[in-house]
Formats: sequence, C-alpha cells, structure tokens
Amino acid sequence: MSSQRTVRDVAALVGGTAEGDLDAPIRDVKPLAEAGPGDVSFLANARYAAEFAATQATCVVVPRGLAAPPPPGRSLIRHENPYLAFAKLIEAFRAPPPRPPAGIHHGASVSPDARVGKDVAIGFGAVVEAGAEIGDRAVVGPLSYVGPGATIGEETRLYPRVVVYHGVRVGRRCILHSGCVVGADGFGYATDAQGRHHKVPQVGTVIVEDDVEIGANATIDRAVLGATRIGRGTKIDNLVQVAHNVEVGPGSILVAQCGISGSTKLGHHVVVAAQAGIVGHIEIGDMAQVAAQAGVTKDVPAQSQVLGAPAVPARDGLRAYALIDRLPEYKKAIADHERRLERLEKAAAGAGAGG
Amino acid sequence: MSSQRTVRDVAALVGGTAEGDLDAPIRDVKPLAEAGPGDVSFLANARYAAEFAATQATCVVVPRGLAAPPPPGRSLIRHENPYLAFAKLIEAFRAPPPRPPAGIHHGASVSPDARVGKDVAIGFGAVVEAGAEIGDRAVVGPLSYVGPGATIGEETRLYPRVVVYHGVRVGRRCILHSGCVVGADGFGYATDAQGRHHKVPQVGTVIVEDDVEIGANATIDRAVLGATRIGRGTKIDNLVQVAHNVEVGPGSILVAQCGISGSTKLGHHVVVAAQAGIVGHIEIGDMAQVAAQAGVTKDVPAQSQVLGAPAVPARDGLRAYALIDRLPEYKKAIADHERRLERLEKAAAGAGAGG
Amino acid sequence: MSSQRTVRDVAALVGGTAEGDLDAPIRDVKPLAEAGPGDVSFLANARYAAEFAATQATCVVVPRGLAAPPPPGRSLIRHENPYLAFAKLIEAFRAPPPRPPAGIHHGASVSPDARVGKDVAIGFGAVVEAGAEIGDRAVVGPLSYVGPGATIGEETRLYPRVVVYHGVRVGRRCILHSGCVVGADGFGYATDAQGRHHKVPQVGTVIVEDDVEIGANATIDRAVLGATRIGRGTKIDNLVQVAHNVEVGPGSILVAQCGISGSTKLGHHVVVAAQAGIVGHIEIGDMAQVAAQAGVTKDVPAQSQVLGAPAVPARDGLRAYALIDRLPEYKKAIADHERRLERLEKAAAGAGAGG
Repeated sequence: MSSQRTVRDVAALVGGTAEGDLDAPIRDVKPLAEAGPGDVSFLANARYAAEFAATQATCVVVPRGLAAPPPPGRSLIRHENPYLAFAKLIEAFRAPPPRPPAGIHHGASVSPDARVGKDVAIGFGAVVEAGAEIGDRAVVGPLSYVGPGATIGEETRLYPRVVVYHGVRVGRRCILHSGCVVGADGFGYATDAQGRHHKVPQVGTVIVEDDVEIGANATIDRAVLGATRIGRGTKIDNLVQVAHNVEVGPGSILVAQCGISGSTKLGHHVVVAAQAGIVGHIEIGDMAQVAAQAGVTKDVPAQSQVLGAPAVPARDGLRAYALIDRLPEYKKAIADHERRLERLEKAAAGAGAGG
Repeated sequence: MSSQRTVRDVAALVGGTAEGDLDAPIRDVKPLAEAGPGDVSFLANARYAAEFAATQATCVVVPRGLAAPPPPGRSLIRHENPYLAFAKLIEAFRAPPPRPPAGIHHGASVSPDARVGKDVAIGFGAVVEAGAEIGDRAVVGPLSYVGPGATIGEETRLYPRVVVYHGVRVGRRCILHSGCVVGADGFGYATDAQGRHHKVPQVGTVIVEDDVEIGANATIDRAVLGATRIGRGTKIDNLVQVAHNVEVGPGSILVAQCGISGSTKLGHHVVVAAQAGIVGHIEIGDMAQVAAQAGVTKDVPAQSQVLGAPAVPARDGLRAYALIDRLPEYKKAIADHERRLERLEKAAAGAGAGG
Repeated sequence: MSSQRTVRDVAALVGGTAEGDLDAPIRDVKPLAEAGPGDVSFLANARYAAEFAATQATCVVVPRGLAAPPPPGRSLIRHENPYLAFAKLIEAFRAPPPRPPAGIHHGASVSPDARVGKDVAIGFGAVVEAGAEIGDRAVVGPLSYVGPGATIGEETRLYPRVVVYHGVRVGRRCILHSGCVVGADGFGYATDAQGRHHKVPQVGTVIVEDDVEIGANATIDRAVLGATRIGRGTKIDNLVQVAHNVEVGPGSILVAQCGISGSTKLGHHVVVAAQAGIVGHIEIGDMAQVAAQAGVTKDVPAQSQVLGAPAVPARDGLRAYALIDRLPEYKKAIADHERRLERLEKAAAGAGAGG
C-alpha cells in the first residue's frame, strides 16, 4: 500500500491547508511518537503536545487554529478535524481488513428457504435459517448464526461467531463483531405469591438501523412486544448491554461495558461512556452525555451532561464528587466546631448568669 | 394466532375480575400506548398512568385495588398481579419462539459415547462430547458445545452458540442464551516470591439446577474444588459474572452485568441489580436486595436492602448518597462556621480579658 | 488419581515442614469444611479460622508463622505460601481437564495455506484461515476461529469457541477460554460537523505474550496502529474489556468485568480489581493496585493503591468513602451549628450594644 504521495497530495486528500515543504514525500501514517521521515501523523488531543514537539514525522495534521510552532523542519497540515483526517489517512495508506471472497462455503448451512442476495460471502460453519434474508454484498462470517426470518442488510458484515436471533432486522452497512448477540430474550419475569418467577415471553424483536457498529460480545435484547431499536449510525462498543424495548436514537455512542435498562429511550447523538448504567423507563435527551460509571436514575435533559452515581449535572457534580476525598477533614471540623460552640455557649450562659 | 376471545374469556384466562363490556372481542395484547380496539393491555407500573388514561385498548388489566377510573369506554380486568396476567396474555395471543424439530442434524458432531434422550434436537455445527448426556426433549442449538461428561436436563434449551464445559450439570427446563459460558476455569493463581502466577487447577464443576435461565454472554465459572451452584428457578441476565465456588440460592435474580466474586453465598430470592458487585467469601441473606451498581463488601442480612459503594443499608444510604451533591455547600458552610467561631472566640477572649 | 501418599510425602511434594503424624495416609485434597480423614487441606485466608479449628482433615497446610494450635489430632504442614501449596496438591491428587487428542478433526476447516505444527489438536468446526500459524502441541478447540495470518504459540490452548482475529499474535502456553475475542476493532470514530461518525480503520493488531490466560467472553481490541499488548504471564478474568492500544505489563491481574480504555499503559504486576474502570491515555505504575469498582481518571504511581470513583489513594480514600454514610448526620450538625452561631452572634452583638 505504499503510495508515492507528497505533503501537497496528502493535504488535498484530507482537505487541509499545508505549510512547509509541500513536495516532501509521504509514504505512511504513524502515531506521533513512532513516526519518522516519510510519515504523516496527527495531533488531535492536547495530551500529546510533548510528542508533537519531539516528533520525527515529516508532516503533522493539526487543528486549524493551533498556535504552537511546528517542530523544526516539519510540515503541517491545518485541518478542522485532525482525527477525521487521520481516519482518511489510514484508508489511504493502509490495507483494509481481509474480506472473504463472495460465495457460500460448502461447510455452511444455508436453508433453501433463505433468500441470499448477490455477491454475498457466507463462511464455513455459518448458519442461515429458513426465511432469513441476506442482502447483496453482505458477509456472514464463519460460525455466525442468522435465525429464522432475520434480515441482514446490504453490505453489512458479520464477523465470525455473531448471533442474530429469529426475526431480528439488521440494516445496511452495519458491522457486527464477534460474539455479539442480537435478539436474545429480554429479562422479564412475573413473580407470583409463592416467589416463582414466570417468564414473560419476549415476542418482540430488534431493529438495528443502517450504519450501526456493534462491538464484540455486546448484547441487545429483543423487545417483549414491539421492538428494541438502535438508530442509524449509532456505534456500540464491546460488552455493552441494551435491554428489551430500549430505543437508541441515531448517531449515539455507547462505550464499553455500559448498560441501558428496559424501555429507556435515548435521543440522537447521546453519549453513554464506559461502565455507565441507566435505569429503565426513563428518557435521555438528544445530545446528552453520561459520564463513565455514572448511574442514571431519572430523565436527563437534552444537551446536558451528568456524572456520578446517582448521576447529577456534571458541572456541580464534578466538584461534589471530588470533595468525597475531604470528608475526613469535614468530620473533624464539625466535631471541632461542636466542642467550641459548647464552650462558647457555656461561657455565654455563665456570663448571662453572672450578669 | 388471532383467537376470537371476549373480555370475559380473557378475564377467565388470566384469573381476574372483569368490568365493563364483557362481550367486547379481544384479538391481541399490546402495550398501553400502542393498543387499539380489539387489544387487551396492562398497567403494572405507576409510571404509565398517563398512557393508561389515554389508551385506546378495549380492555386493560389493572391492579385489583386501582382507584383511578377506567378510561371512558374501556373495560377493566382487576388482577392481583397484572404483570403475571400479561405473561399469560402473551402466551395466549402470540406465537412462541421458533423451535427446531427433533433430530440430530447431520452437520452436528455427537460422540458415539454420548447419551442422547428422546425427541432431542441437536443443531448444525453443535458438538456433544463423549460421556455427555442430553435429556429428553432438550434442544442443543446450532454451534453449541456440550463438553465431555456434561449433562443437559430434560426440556432444557441451549440457544445457538452456548458453551457448557466438561462435567457441568445443567438441570431441567433451563434456558441458556447464546454466548453464555458455563464452567470455564475459576480465576485462581498462587503468586510466588518472584511474582509468577501459578494456576490453581480448577477441578470442580458447576451445577445449574432446574428452571434456571442464563442470559446472553453470561459467564459462570467452575469451582476450584466442589461446585459452583445456581439454585432452582434462579434467573440470570446478560453479561453477568458468577465466579468459582459461588452458591446462589433458589429463586434469585441476577440482573445484567452484575458480578459475584468467589465463594460468596447468596440465599434464596436474593436480587442483585444491574452492574452491582459483591466481594468474595461473604453471605447475602435470603430475600436481600442489592441495588444497581452497589459494591457489597460485607455480609448482608436476610430481607435487607443495600445500596452504594461501599454498600450501606438502603434507607439511610439513599439519603446519604443523595447528599454527595450538597458537599460544595457543606464545604462552604464549614469554612464559614470556622471564621465565625474564631471571631466569637476572639471577642470572648477580649471580653474575658476585659472583665 | 488416588495415590498412596503420607503427610511426609505431601510435605516434600509442596516443600513444607510437617508436624504431627508424618505417616498418616493422604489420599485427596479438599476445602477445610469438607475435608475428612485421609484429606489434606489448607488455610490461606484468616476468614477461615473457624473452619480450621473444626476441620476433620488429616493434615492442613498453614502459613509458616501461624500461632494458632493445630486442631486436636491433626497434622500440619508449615509453608511460606499455602495457596501455592494448594495448587500443587490439586495437580498431584486430581485429574487435569480433559484434553483433546492431537490431530485435525475432519469437521474442521484448516486452510492449506495455514502452518500447523506437530501434535496439534484442532477440533470439530474450528476454522484456521490462510497464513495462520499454529505452534506445536497447541489446541484449537471446537468452533474456534483463527483468522488470516494470526499465530498461536506452542502449547497454547484455545477452549471451544474462541475468536482470534486476523494478524493477532498469541504466545506460548497461553490459555484462552470460551467466548473470548482477541483482535476485534478498537472503538474509534471521527465525528464530522454533521454529527456523522466516520470509522477510523483499526489496522493495528494485538500481541499476547507467553503464559497469558484470558477469561470467558473477555474482549481485547486490536490497535488503531501498532499493537495492543498483553505482557507475559498476565492473567485476565471473564468479561474484561481491554481497548485499542492499551499496553499491559507482565505479571498483571485484571479481574472480572474491569475495563481499560484506549492507549492506557499498565506497568508490571498491576492489579485491577473487579468492575474497575480506567480512562484512556494514562499510566498505571508497576505493582499499583486498583480497587474493585474504582474509576481511575489520572496516572497512578507505582506501588500505590487507589479506590473509589473518582479514584483516590486507598489509605485516605477508604476512610473518606466510608463517611458518605454519615452525610445526613453532618448535614444536621452543620444546620445546628448555623443556628447556634446565629444565636451567639446575636447575643454578642446585644452584649456589645449593651456594653
């Protein structure tokens, strides 16, 4: 994949403004600390200022308004969104992941009652049950399972060992990583007076809209009735739990190991950070952000940020949670005040008595 | 599955008391907000009072003592447990999940030394190793693995891609969802003076009693010696971790992403809510409830409720954790008191000196 | 596996010092509470003092300096590390887990372009893609997937249904449990001005060094560039998440359901307890310990211990977090002090005015 490109070419490729030696050759993209002559790198996170100052990269993509001078002898490409430029650079300079050739492996089990589109790849050991539909150019990885009546949209890729339960609908251009399970039963039981848990049959489904990515070993449960829904362009990380009847709006981000309880609704472009949990039956407004490990127990307004458990608005909450550390000091101060108040009150009483 | 039933029939079916038009036809069950003429719905959670008031359902199953008037023109069915009635309604009006036909798929690998009961379904790509036993009418889903000497009880269903390690015993009428792993090694190492971790061989097993459900991608580790045990009728949600030598009593509920550390014992009908964690070597009493995200570090008495991390009794704890938000205010008040005390003490000293 | 050994033999086997009846026969190893005549047991955790006092074991391995007297009629073996002795006892007295015989199952799919070493076992339904390498005496369990160009070191064991993505390198003598996924894409998106998330191609890899164990359903993501690295002898529990470009030093312990965010570096012999989370782009020093459920937001110095969320040094933090429970009391005291201060100030002002 080594292409003969110059700094000028790279600036045009990513849509940025070049400074410095525009004819310097660029052959690869690397992180700042590892880049050397011939490499382009990027600066998107202020934490990496030291690496930027010391980089050996020929060229660095930087935020358009960056004030820091370029490292001596380096070219810069100024860009509104260096991280987006980075994504384009990897596409330009690196090979994409290997993709199986089209065709149904003779070691797969595809029902004669399934509908399989054009140029589909179905790997060894994969199962496509009756009534399932696989869209054109989709990939069903080895050892994956597509249940009865489930649909997989065009150009969607199931990595090895994905499970899509019966009736689930997965949109176009989705990516499902190994071990994720879409459409297992929601967790619903009605407990009788004797303490026996009766299963509430989970007869709904899951709808995963277009351009969704689902991480390894993530789980998205089917609805009890109706559908659990993952909105278009939403990205879900590894080991995330989405319970039955949850609705996640488009463009949202669910980071690793977070969990959304049943029937909760997330708006569009909501961010739920790692290990956060959200109770059931509430609403998280558009563009709201839930901090890592937060425990959200009530509705969150649109565009707001919450943190902590129980979660509170972030601005105040950050200050509040940071003060937990000071509790021993407060305990001491309160006890001290108590003693001093008693002394003063005694003295005042004595003075009063004496007066 | 559309049956011609009346409100009267439905009341008899669920064991409730009907009010209103007992002859109105009922053809389906739907959530309050989506139900229309011909539908029965239910009200089990006070959060849905507004949906109840506005529902278009022909009939609603409500708590027996509900004071709110029925929406105009709607019938009611009063019931001790509307959620349990809802479970029965789904069974009555909706199709159960598709179930594979009995038989061993020619694409499965079943050891000649395994014992397979009557009317068992074993799917494509499934593995049943030597010495394993599969009870009558059990289902081993496609791509599932039943290890050497493991037993699967009658009528138990393994969805696709379940793993049951060697020697594990799974009871009758259990449901194991895709991706769950029962019987992997417990996490035990003895660290020597050089910092090397020596594996403690995990030679025990797991016993899953009857009527247990295990969620997608949950993990239940085998004991180091003896057995990790999941009691009868216990329900385990997705991505739950149960460590080696844990004992969970019957009728317990472990909600998504919670974790129970090694050798801890849970009584019967314990509830561990989502993302909670319990340390090892402690006991959680019968019917105790552990709140979501709680971090339990010591024994919990029977029938008590705990929350927070470190977990404390719920009644006091709820108040305490809610006050974290007020810490900045307390900080300010304590500093203010300090100043005012100093001023008063100075004045008192002056007065004393002057007296 | 029942061997005719004496207390003397067992002491020699584990490298300890025997006291009592050195000729008493030992036939098995059991936990203190379950052990009887002919059994050896061990005491490694002070919590089990009562079981020790009451044990029926013929012999107990105890810490060398244990002051408590042996239960009447029992032999002792004094040892620097009774838990390590316990590991050796299990190896001596119990059968190891069943191990599949060498050979490639005819129901596996092994690419002719893969390199398979000597005495390798590849199970039914396993996939080994082109360019992959399987070292001598390795085991690729049934239904496991080894992607194009991935390498599995000598004597490494993949239990059933493990996924190793393309290009990933797994070292020698590793153990990978069912459901773990090594090498899925890191979670990286560049969001444009329209709120669309563009995937940053994850073209790096994962390097798992020798003697690593990875638990069931754990996930270790591939790097965006370069490699995510798991150091030699590190042990990873079930459902752990290791994000892209993380580096974990040798001899570390990552306990169940913890998560390490992208680009964070852990030193050697770091312990991350259950359900803890560590943000991205920070460093955790050698031998540092992160408590269960901690939320680590900044660098942790070597050999230090942190707890809480946000995490603070353990010594102070334990005290601080324990005081959350007292907040209602502090609230009341502060309000009470406020009232009493106002009264004293009023009195002082009156006294001043009257003076």
